[in-house]
This record gives sequence, structure tokens and C-alpha cells, in this order.
Amino acid sequence: MIPVAVIGASGYTGAELIRILARHPRVDLRVVTSRQYAGRPVAEVFPSLRGVCGLSFTAYEPAAICREVAAVFTALPHKTAIEVVAAFHEAGKKVIDLSADYRFGDADLYEAWYQEHSRRDLLARAVYGLPELNRAAIAEADIVGNPGCYPTGAILALVPLLRRGVVDLDRPLVVDAKSGTSGAGRAAAVGTLFCEVNDSFKAYKVGSHRHQPEIAEQLFLAAGCRPSVLFAPHLVPMNRGILSTIYVPLAAGPDLGDPLAVYEEFYRDEPFVRLLPAGELPVTSAVRGSNYCDLGFVPSPENGLLVVVTAIDNLVKGAAGQAVQNLNIMFGLEEELGLQTVPLYP
Amino acid sequence: MIPVAVIGASGYTGAELIRILARHPRVDLRVVTSRQYAGRPVAEVFPSLRGVCGLSFTAYEPAAICREVAAVFTALPHKTAIEVVAAFHEAGKKVIDLSADYRFGDADLYEAWYQEHSRRDLLARAVYGLPELNRAAIAEADIVGNPGCYPTGAILALVPLLRRGVVDLDRPLVVDAKSGTSGAGRAAAVGTLFCEVNDSFKAYKVGSHRHQPEIAEQLFLAAGCRPSVLFAPHLVPMNRGILSTIYVPLAAGPDLGDPLAVYEEFYRDEPFVRLLPAGELPVTSAVRGSNYCDLGFVPSPENGLLVVVTAIDNLVKGAAGQAVQNLNIMFGLEEELGLQTVPLYP
Amino acid sequence: MIPVAVIGASGYTGAELIRILARHPRVDLRVVTSRQYAGRPVAEVFPSLRGVCGLSFTAYEPAAICREVAAVFTALPHKTAIEVVAAFHEAGKKVIDLSADYRFGDADLYEAWYQEHSRRDLLARAVYGLPELNRAAIAEADIVGNPGCYPTGAILALVPLLRRGVVDLDRPLVVDAKSGTSGAGRAAAVGTLFCEVNDSFKAYKVGSHRHQPEIAEQLFLAAGCRPSVLFAPHLVPMNRGILSTIYVPLAAGPDLGDPLAVYEEFYRDEPFVRLLPAGELPVTSAVRGSNYCDLGFVPSPENGLLVVVTAIDNLVKGAAGQAVQNLNIMFGLEEELGLQTVPLYP
Amino acid sequence: MIPVAVIGASGYTGAELIRILARHPRVDLRVVTSRQYAGRPVAEVFPSLRGVCGLSFTAYEPAAICREVAAVFTALPHKTAIEVVAAFHEAGKKVIDLSADYRFGDADLYEAWYQEHSRRDLLARAVYGLPELNRAAIAEADIVGNPGCYPTGAILALVPLLRRGVVDLDRPLVVDAKSGTSGAGRAAAVGTLFCEVNDSFKAYKVGSHRHQPEIAEQLFLAAGCRPSVLFAPHLVPMNRGILSTIYVPLAAGPDLGDPLAVYEEFYRDEPFVRLLPAGELPVTSAVRGSNYCDLGFVPSPENGLLVVVTAIDNLVKGAAGQAVQNLNIMFGLEEELGLQTVPLYP
Repeated sequence: MIPVAVIGASGYTGAELIRILARHPRVDLRVVTSRQYAGRPVAEVFPSLRGVCGLSFTAYEPAAICREVAAVFTALPHKTAIEVVAAFHEAGKKVIDLSADYRFGDADLYEAWYQEHSRRDLLARAVYGLPELNRAAIAEADIVGNPGCYPTGAILALVPLLRRGVVDLDRPLVVDAKSGTSGAGRAAAVGTLFCEVNDSFKAYKVGSHRHQPEIAEQLFLAAGCRPSVLFAPHLVPMNRGILSTIYVPLAAGPDLGDPLAVYEEFYRDEPFVRLLPAGELPVTSAVRGSNYCDLGFVPSPENGLLVVVTAIDNLVKGAAGQAVQNLNIMFGLEEELGLQTVPLYP
Repeated sequence: MIPVAVIGASGYTGAELIRILARHPRVDLRVVTSRQYAGRPVAEVFPSLRGVCGLSFTAYEPAAICREVAAVFTALPHKTAIEVVAAFHEAGKKVIDLSADYRFGDADLYEAWYQEHSRRDLLARAVYGLPELNRAAIAEADIVGNPGCYPTGAILALVPLLRRGVVDLDRPLVVDAKSGTSGAGRAAAVGTLFCEVNDSFKAYKVGSHRHQPEIAEQLFLAAGCRPSVLFAPHLVPMNRGILSTIYVPLAAGPDLGDPLAVYEEFYRDEPFVRLLPAGELPVTSAVRGSNYCDLGFVPSPENGLLVVVTAIDNLVKGAAGQAVQNLNIMFGLEEELGLQTVPLYP
Repeated sequence: MIPVAVIGASGYTGAELIRILARHPRVDLRVVTSRQYAGRPVAEVFPSLRGVCGLSFTAYEPAAICREVAAVFTALPHKTAIEVVAAFHEAGKKVIDLSADYRFGDADLYEAWYQEHSRRDLLARAVYGLPELNRAAIAEADIVGNPGCYPTGAILALVPLLRRGVVDLDRPLVVDAKSGTSGAGRAAAVGTLFCEVNDSFKAYKVGSHRHQPEIAEQLFLAAGCRPSVLFAPHLVPMNRGILSTIYVPLAAGPDLGDPLAVYEEFYRDEPFVRLLPAGELPVTSAVRGSNYCDLGFVPSPENGLLVVVTAIDNLVKGAAGQAVQNLNIMFGLEEELGLQTVPLYP
Repeated sequence: MIPVAVIGASGYTGAELIRILARHPRVDLRVVTSRQYAGRPVAEVFPSLRGVCGLSFTAYEPAAICREVAAVFTALPHKTAIEVVAAFHEAGKKVIDLSADYRFGDADLYEAWYQEHSRRDLLARAVYGLPELNRAAIAEADIVGNPGCYPTGAILALVPLLRRGVVDLDRPLVVDAKSGTSGAGRAAAVGTLFCEVNDSFKAYKVGSHRHQPEIAEQLFLAAGCRPSVLFAPHLVPMNRGILSTIYVPLAAGPDLGDPLAVYEEFYRDEPFVRLLPAGELPVTSAVRGSNYCDLGFVPSPENGLLVVVTAIDNLVKGAAGQAVQNLNIMFGLEEELGLQTVPLYP
């Protein structure tokens, strides 16, 4: 059993990590921290976990935690995570960071969109934790920057096409993404009150969301080219799920052939990417609660476009599930362990 | 008072027409027909209308109806409407048809996407009922083809830009639209059951929805150019509302200038188009139950794109409200009559 | 035109008052105050009101407000309202208070459930603003305590039965009520975040909600008897609406007869109470956005019970609409003015 | 591995059985039948099950099925199940029937509320499959009538109190229950369309729902007394979950003592009943997707009532999960096998 801790476990991502880890056959969840709830039983804060997790939240005491665990999940706000990750890393622990602080290869890019990064040395060591692209590097990593929820759905759709060289790099890639509200977190805020979100729909931060540079950089790192990306997020009145509708301009030259064949070749052995037959498009309820990424597409040859649609659960493949997938890889476990939950429909 | 009938009043569009007409100060709703509910009081089928509408549904008897009314709204399925509209037209009634049967200028285009059109002569007489574009023609029309819900939101966003000549016609216009579920109608179907739609999100009919040619034709008729349009509809777990996120490729040549100024000039005197200040984007709850179209935008100069976002209530500005707006114009009434309902938030 | 102000207009009740008053033909809304949003246009805070209300929120400056208006709606938190109401009252303004501060006849009861009441003199002057019971007193009142949302639905169901003397006062009345989430207000709070409420259902404050003594006292004042009331509220994942399922123990002695006849006699001339035919039960969507209270029932003679079910929109008949109804009565206007909005279905 | 079949697997209960059985470590799901979808892959009809269940639906061919399996789940409409269950029983298979056809001990009662029962002999053999009450009998049974969803939540709340003899049998038990919409099934119907249910709430079949006699009979069988039960179901705009608020009249005589102690004694060793601490009430999201029944209560001594609240997932503990729990018991497996899914929150 691998003893682990979750630092900052009182948000939706933290609760989801506990949900998954509590049933992981090779992991022993020992410590969950929360400044706000320190001292209170997990089951009291999250009644869904009554009888599932017997822990109480504790304060953040790194030395004590280090004596208990071999690996740490950090589910903290951006910026806060930088030094916490560093502390555990320096204590020799494997760290999987779910903030944005260790996702960027280019520290300047991080600083342009977030704030100063006080540990550029560690940022340079961290591996971007998208197993379908970086499995080998993750296996060797001691710090994994767990991908953003939106980037996961976009990158999985785009990299196979970019590597094929069939994308017209002179035209922008448009990623029109729609997310459930858990992506906004569990902090009290007027904008995510039930009555503000229910029975309504909106776009926000079009072209200015911080996941846009993350997507762009990973496309470059994974495919070696620098497409222009316009990212347009939207808020959906649902709890979980991201559907990304991606408009891919195809190059005039090399023919793409059958997109399904391209994806099948790329994702042949992947346990968590499900390719839909031609003519079918994903729906978020089909991945709810699971680590799957469903992928479908519609060719639009008259427009020189391929429309690719992916669906993930933002809290699972977009956050906690992918983090556990990374843990499994880092510790040489079977990659699906703890992640075989069947999607909850309806 | 103008005596009117609604033919096929048992769907959501029919119920919405009754809701609006019941409070219209210059309209007297005399007849509502429904094959399914003939003989039953409206208030029994639609309890919201108890005490509001004292009528009972009747069977479709055109001769009797013609003796009662001066104008007719037809809210029938496509194809069924063709001959019904013709019958009332030939009896000298003004007709506003909410199906697709009288929306197309090009009968061949209609037939390519729907079915044979048995009254091409009348189709040629019909006016596309988008008042912001065709007010003068609507005033003279005796048959109005009321626009589709999706096309309303898309066309209002695009025509001002196309007329300015700032759109790059060599690249496709992408209309990524998200609709509430009332757009799918009130017929029993598994796909629109509560549990299939709630807490979920999906794309459907990308590139193959019948509103795509309607949008394309109206852009041509209104702006004189033939942009390529890719239309991608999505289903939102909400009752009402369409949010359209439209990716407009800008031409390299003539500078667009301030998009807000362009829209302000175009919509200066329009009572139902609300332009949002720079930096704000629409939300469907802000138009719920009203005839407004809210419009905002985000420039993306690095991608050569302008992202325009519109929000309408699909049952009001996207159907019944616009139909009543057309009626007002056809009968020389003040255009806002019966349509001043304030949006219902939250 | 009656010039009015809304004090504390930035919550859901405040927004709803603006929505209704903006279209009231005899009211001129002059002032809307908000500590939080002072200086900002209403249309910026509530985009639904763009083009509807041109005012900006102002700070609370009673002297200046008194120069502008003849009547005041106070939509403030409990306790805060006490002195604000007093100030306007002493300046000779009619006041309709939407807090609980002027709802109780028994000041001790108020203090037992809320806090000390610093203006018992004014509390004694205030009239409970349920027009169906207190119309004459409201017409003479200068301070109206606008009823709570839950009490409105419960009291309208119960008073006709209590006045008939058919209720068994030795057994408790059980009011099992289910409310949409707007009843919890617009303050940021974890418990009313979208993800906490959506796709979920819960009971809360069973037997300890402050509306329980309000219901009990009004039943006593209206019917002269003191039934025992158990009030059990629940939170529904919807924006608006309260459905109250009320279990009424019937006395063995005098026969109730046909409950519908009892209600018809009581509510014969009421514009906002809609009685459903035997066998039909209300649904909240049928009253959404309107000032109606729908009422139906099911006899359960084998249990000695009559089950009465009412549906209201908690923001309209349960708050802002009823407040405007009271204003109309206080100023001798036709009672339905400004309140004829048809329910928004679906 | 126990080879099993699901007969009538195309509804929500069927899909849920597949979801659970697909991950059951000791069950091999061999056959799923559906008249409507015969020949189509399960993953095509239920995209959530892609990669999870490789079967295709087949037609109902009992002889062939009997050669494959040792146990059968029947998830058919009432009446249809009677002979299907009989056929498998006579072929020596263990049968767990999820319809109402084998739930009643009193065949006359069944016939009074449903229709004629053609196999009274088998009905007499069937065991009511509520493990917390009937575990020993279930272990010996060859036909189990799986409880209704509403009865499960009501009976688990009531039996411990009835057995204690603390309930006043002269006053009615009121069960005010609120169910998610999946309880209404997956058949196309106007009443369960998204727009009819979303953002709305209603009561239905108060006092006339078929689960009322089921509850009443089981209370009698389990506790030996015949309380009067009034059952009032409501429809909640959510997918899954039943919250039952139960008003229990307490007898004047023997003191109940601490209700928590009563429940703790009764449910001490039950893996799926979670008792909440005093002062906490259940919420359906805390049991979503799990086999738990959460139970809390509020005493109301001034009314002589104890209010008990239970929450279950209607598709799991209220249907498929309980059926699998019964299977485990019938085959001598550990009772929690396949049922350890953690509730999905949010």
C-alpha cells in the first residue's frame, strides 16, 4: 500500500480525490488537510463520504505529513501550491500538483498569465501529467503538473491531428468548450449560486482564459508546431462534464484520410480514451463520474474543417482521476487501478 | 381589436403564442386549434393559462375559422403548414407561419433540405419575418415566414458585419449555438426526457442541421454575399434560451473599427436588440421570457477573428414573440405592443 | 403616478420588485438603494433589466429619498429593517416591509424567534399584508408587514378550513413545504452554490424554521383558533416556486362537505387564487413569474385528513408581487395593476 | 462466477443493473434482453457503457437463456413479469424480479391495486427482498420480489419504531416522498419531458399511488401491526434520489427514548444504512449512485410526532443495487460485493 496525503482537500477536487482514493486497492489515504475544516471529520463536511472515509481534516503540517506518506496530491489554489510542492519534493516525496503552478514548460509564459514563479528550478523538473502523451516521462517524474480540465479535453483531440501534419497552421484552432459548474470550485461566490447558473447559459473569458496558453504550449510541446488557438469557455447548468467542440482547419496538402483511423492508431492501447463510431458525437452524461475521454468528429470538407468533439468529467479525467492515473504510473502500478468506476447514467 | 387564430397551438410555441396574445392590448385571440386536444379547455392542457385564456382547443376547420379572424398564426410541423397557409391566404387572411415552409427564398434549397414544396407560387410571395432586416417588406406582406430560432440569433449578429464588408468570405463563419430544450418541441421522445438532458450536454447535427441553409440564405439575401457557414448546435439542460457564439473571420483589408459602433449604428432604433458594453457577454437568463436579443463581442485580432455572442429566448424572439412583432408590423401597430414583458430573472 | 423607492434592492426580491414596478402603469420607481452596488447602474448588476430600468443604485440616504417618494418598499435583512421602516414612517411615507420585522402581532413571539424589537409601538400599528385576509386593514395601513413566502402558501390553504371549524385542533397540522432556491437569497454561500443544490434534494430546519411561528400566529389571528403546526421546509433544485403539501386533520363532528365549495366561497372574488378542479394538483411551473396561488386538494377520509396543496412563485406572490398588490390596495388602485404577467411555461 | 441474465434491460433500471453487474467480481453478465433494441450493442444504446459491456441486446428466448445462466433479474413492466418469472423459476433458476408482481404477500391486495395475478402459487413462495428485514428468508428464496423504490425508503424508517411499539396506531403515518425523475422510467412521455420537469415541482397520486399498499403490507408483515399510511409522492427535477419525510405519531405510553439509539440497535451491522448524528438530515446527493440509505430525524414532542427522513438513490438501493444485494445473499456471497461504489458528489 502506498501511503498518500491530499493537501487542500476541502474543495470539489479534494472531495473527488478522496472518493477515488478511498476505493483504490493499492493506496492508503492517510492525511487530508484543510485550513478551513481542520479538526472536523471528513464525513461531516462531505456526507457522501460517511462510512467511506474515517479521517478528519488536519492543518497543514508538512513535517508530520512527511513522516506518514510516500506521495502527495496538492489541490491548492494557484500560487499557494508553489512552495508546498517544493517542500514535499525536498522531503523526497512524489508530488502530483493539481494547480497550474507546475504545468508550464515556459516559466515566462506562466508568469505572463499567472504571477511570478518562485521555483523555476522545480518547474523545469516537473512533467505535464497527460499520460496519453507523456507516459514515459511521468513514470520517471517526481513532480507532475496535473493538466487543467479544459486543456485535457482539447489536447487529446488535437495532438493526433497535429502530429499527422494535417492541420493548417495559418488558420486558428477554435476550441469552444462548455463546462459544468464544479469547474468553478466550491468557494462561496454570487456568480456560481444555484439561481445564477440554473436554467441559464453563458460564455466567459473568451480569448482570455488561462487555459488558453496551457493548451497552446502543450500543443507545441507535443506536436512541435505552434498553431494559433482561440479558446472560448462557457458555463453549463450541470455539475460535471466538459464538452469541447473544436474547429480544426485542415491543410490543403496532405490528405487526412479517415479521421477515425488516425485516432484509432493513436489511442489504440489507451484504456481511458473511447472513440465513437463515425456519425456519433459524445455526451457528457456518458462519462459522468468516470475517467473516460469520449471522442467523436464530423468532417466539414466544404469548409476545410474537421470538427472534433470530446467529453470528459472535469473532476475525474479533468482533475482527480487523471491525478490518480499519474500516481499509478509513477509507482509502477496498473494504470487503471482505482479508476474503473462505470459512468453514472442517468 | 384584431381577431386572430393559432393553428396547432398545443406545442411549446403554441402555448407561448397564447401567453403573449392573451395580454396583447390590440389582439383578440378567438381560435386555438389542436388535433390532439380538440374539445379540451386550454387551461386544462396548460395549467399556467388558467384564468388567462378561457378558450377550448378546437379541430382545424378553416372555413369556420376564416369567418372569425383577420390573421392566422400557423404553428404546425414542417410540410403540414404548406397547404394550411395557402388556404388562409386564399381566404384573404394575413398569415404568419412559424414552420420552415415559407422561410426560404430559393425553393430548390428548401426542397434539398426539407421536401417538395407544393406551393412555390406562395413561397415566392412570402417575406422572411426578421423585422430588424425586413421591416418594410413585412409591413406589406400577406404571408410571413417566421425565422427559425437559431437563425434569428445568428443573422442578427452577422448582417451588420457583412454589410460593412469586413468579413473574410474565404474563410468559414462558425456558428456554435447552444439551445434550451424547448426548441426540441413538446412531442414525447426518449431523447428529450428529463433524465436524458438534465445534468448533461451534447452536440448534435453538426453541419447537417436544417437551420444551416436558412442562415446561409438569409446572409446572402440581407448582405449580398455568400459566406460559407458551419452551424454546430448543442443541447443545454435548460428550458429556454439560445446562446450563439459566432467566430467571424475578418478581412485583412478594410478595418472594422469599433464593432460596438458598427452595431450601434445598425441597431440604433431597434427596440428589441440590446448591445452590451465592451467586455460584457450575454447570458440567456437575462432575456428569459422576453423578446430581446442581447449582443456582445470579443475581438481576437491575433487570430483575425471577431467573436460575437448573442442570446435570445428561443420561444420568444426565436418564435412566438417575433411572430407577434411581425403581426404588429403587418397591421400597422406599435411594434412593441404585447411584447414588453421584462425578462424573468432568476 | 406614485413615486416609490426600493430600499435594499440588490437581492432577488429587490430585482423582482424592479421587474414588476418597471411596468406598473401607475408607479414611478425613483430610487433603488444598495450598499454594495451604490453608484452602479441597475442594468449592469442585473443585465435582465437593461433597457428596462435606467436607474443606478444609490446609497441609503433617507432624507433625500423622502423628498422623492410617497411610498417605500424595504427589502432588507431582518433586524436592519426595523429602524429603516420607522424612519420612513415618521416621515409620513407608506411603507411595505418585506422582512419579518413587521409581520408579527405578538412582539414577544417575534423576540422569541428573532431578536429584540426596538419599535414595538410601530409593530403594533403594522398590518399583515395578506390581501385575501386583511384587505380592508391594508387599505388603511401605513405600515404593511409583507408575509413570508412559506406562510403565504400555507395560510391561504388553511384559513378557509379553520374558519369553517372543520379542523381537528387536537392533532397537528403538518405543512411539508418545498421551495426553490431563490428563497435562500443572493448572498454568496457554499450551501446554495449550484453544485450543492443541483440534482439533489434535502429537508432543513424541520420544526425550527422561523416561518413556523408566523404561520401559527396568522392562523390564530385569522381564524381565532390555535392549531398546532409542524412546518417542514425542503430545498428544491429550481429557481422559483413553493409547493406546500398540507396535511389537515379533520374534526369528527361537523362535516366539511365539498372542499372545493368551501374554497370557492372563500376565494370567489379573488383575482390571484386559482382553484383547481377536483383531482388536479398544482405544479409550480404553472405559476412561475406570476402572482397566482394555485390550490388543489385530495381527501383522505380513511385517515381523517384532507391533503391541500398550494403552489406560488416565492418571489412574486411570496414576496414582491404581494408587496405590489399591497401597494395597490394602500393607494386605492385596481388590485391587479402591474401584476397581470402570465406565468412563464415552460 | 455466477452467470446471470437481465430480462428487459433497456430502461433505467436495466442500465443500472448492467452498470453494477459489469464490475461485480463474482458475477458474469451473459445475457441482456430488450424487445426494442434486440440486435443492437448495449454500448450503442447506452454510450456510458462503451468499453464496459460488450454484449448486444437479444430477444427474449427463455430456453436459450436458461442454458447460459444460473440467475435472472427481471426488469419488466408489471404484469409482464408474472409469467416470465414463472418460466425461469420452473427452469430452476433463481429469480429476482424488479416489478411489483412478486412483492405482495396478500394476492388479493395485489389484485386490488394492479390486476389479476395468474401465479398465486409462486407469489406465495416469493420473498420480499429487503435484506435489512428479511435476510434469512432471502438466503433461502428462489424468487425474490425486489422492493419498490418508495417503499424501501419508507419501510427502513418505520419498522424499527413499529417493532418498538412506540407508534400511535390510531393516527395515520404520513409519508411525504420526493423522487427524482428516473423513477418514472425511460418510456417516451410528455409528462417527463425535460421542459415539463425542469425548474418545477409537483405532487401526484396523493393517496392513490400503488406503493401505498406495498408500504402498508410490509409494515404489517415486518412489525405485526397495521398502521394507517398516507403516501404522498412528489416529482423533483433531478435524475436520481428519493427523500422521504415521514411523520410518525408517537404513542403516549411507552417512551421512545433516544431515537438514534433505537436505530443504532436495529441497524448496527447493516453495511448500507447510515445513521446521521442528531441534528443532521439526509440529502440525496450524498447517496447518489450508491446503495446507501441515509437516515436522520427530528423529534417534535409538542406535536407528538417524530419526523424521520431517509434518502436513497432510487435506482440503486431503490432498485438495481438492492437486487444485487439480494443476489449476493441468495448465492452466499459477501453482501457488499459489487456495491461499494462511493456516492458521486457533487
